Amino acid sequence: MSAAIEFYFDFSSPYAYLASEQIDALVQRHGRELVLHPVLLGAAFRVSGQRPLTEVPLKGEYSRRDFARSARHAGIAFAMPEPFPISTVQAARAFLVLQETGDVALLHRYFHAAYRAYFVHGRDISDSSILAQVLEECGAPAASVLEACAQPRTKEALKLAVDAALARGVFGAPYMIVDGEPFWGADRLPQLERWLSSGPF
Amino acid sequence: MSAAIEFYFDFSSPYAYLASEQIDALVQRHGRELVLHPVLLGAAFRVSGQRPLTEVPLKGEYSRRDFARSARHAGIAFAMPEPFPISTVQAARAFLVLQETGDVALLHRYFHAAYRAYFVHGRDISDSSILAQVLEECGAPAASVLEACAQPRTKEALKLAVDAALARGVFGAPYMIVDGEPFWGADRLPQLERWLSSGPF
Repeated sequence: MSAAIEFYFDFSSPYAYLASEQIDALVQRHGRELVLHPVLLGAAFRVSGQRPLTEVPLKGEYSRRDFARSARHAGIAFAMPEPFPISTVQAARAFLVLQETGDVALLHRYFHAAYRAYFVHGRDISDSSILAQVLEECGAPAASVLEACAQPRTKEALKLAVDAALARGVFGAPYMIVDGEPFWGADRLPQLERWLSSGPF
Repeated sequence: MSAAIEFYFDFSSPYAYLASEQIDALVQRHGRELVLHPVLLGAAFRVSGQRPLTEVPLKGEYSRRDFARSARHAGIAFAMPEPFPISTVQAARAFLVLQETGDVALLHRYFHAAYRAYFVHGRDISDSSILAQVLEECGAPAASVLEACAQPRTKEALKLAVDAALARGVFGAPYMIVDGEPFWGADRLPQLERWLSSGPF
């Protein structure tokens, strides 16, 4: 069994959303396992001294154009949400709560549903009532998931997950690691695929 | 005649070097003209509040790995130079001086020779004596080019070129504009090529 593809993501990252729509097929083509790791880009930005792309002078305006064009290039539905960016702390905690249940299919549904809610339908998943709706639509017990999100142990679990990601060098999203090799950005999927197809290059 | 492909570059940008090795073939495939614009990333970074990739915590280490892997992925010779980054003011001024002569073939030779000197052979083109050698190797009259570089009108010409680039929104390199559409990064060449092949998407 080859090593898993580790996929670090933040629900507020447009490029991680674009990668999320391509990663399942890629993983299946190469018979690897996919391990999803929620991170908080705000924490990574504090370490690296960066800020959200759209807030960078000059680059910000370009980035909004690039999100949409890159989505069209890949044939992926996308509509720039407002507000942007949003806090994804609650959505990430909900991911960890679902992960603990061991229901892999539910977790996978939620991963895609939360991304699409925000980046296709413009639903602000930082709003607990909207996040609850998304959870219900996935078949998750929204009330108990959100209750678990408020528990100190869930908060601590996300903090540890973020610290572990930073310790591995994760500074953005999507950030993928396979066989110890890091790939940052949806535009590195071709290099990741080559790595999986024919090994290190 | 379709509009030209405008290519903004800094001789110290690894990704602009990678794009420089691919842009001629792309331009020829689509019968467009290529217009080269030297810029100074330092000036762009001051406006956008960025700094050289390799100096960003976490991202810096990844970027060195990515430069080399992206070069291998594209089949392009590359060796990370030291020192990095370097001042490219003199190399950019020399470009403008050669551009004024109207010798397009010489300008094109210099464009590639300066990039390869730095990113393949590790020659520090911020050193005037090394830049002079590169100019000589291209068949340019090095002494008179460097003398022209020191003239106030050349210095002013580069300043104006950089200001014009910033006014067009150039915040990094390579930055390419075709039919008014901007493409930033060597990894956007596939989208640029699609644009040229089949129009706006």
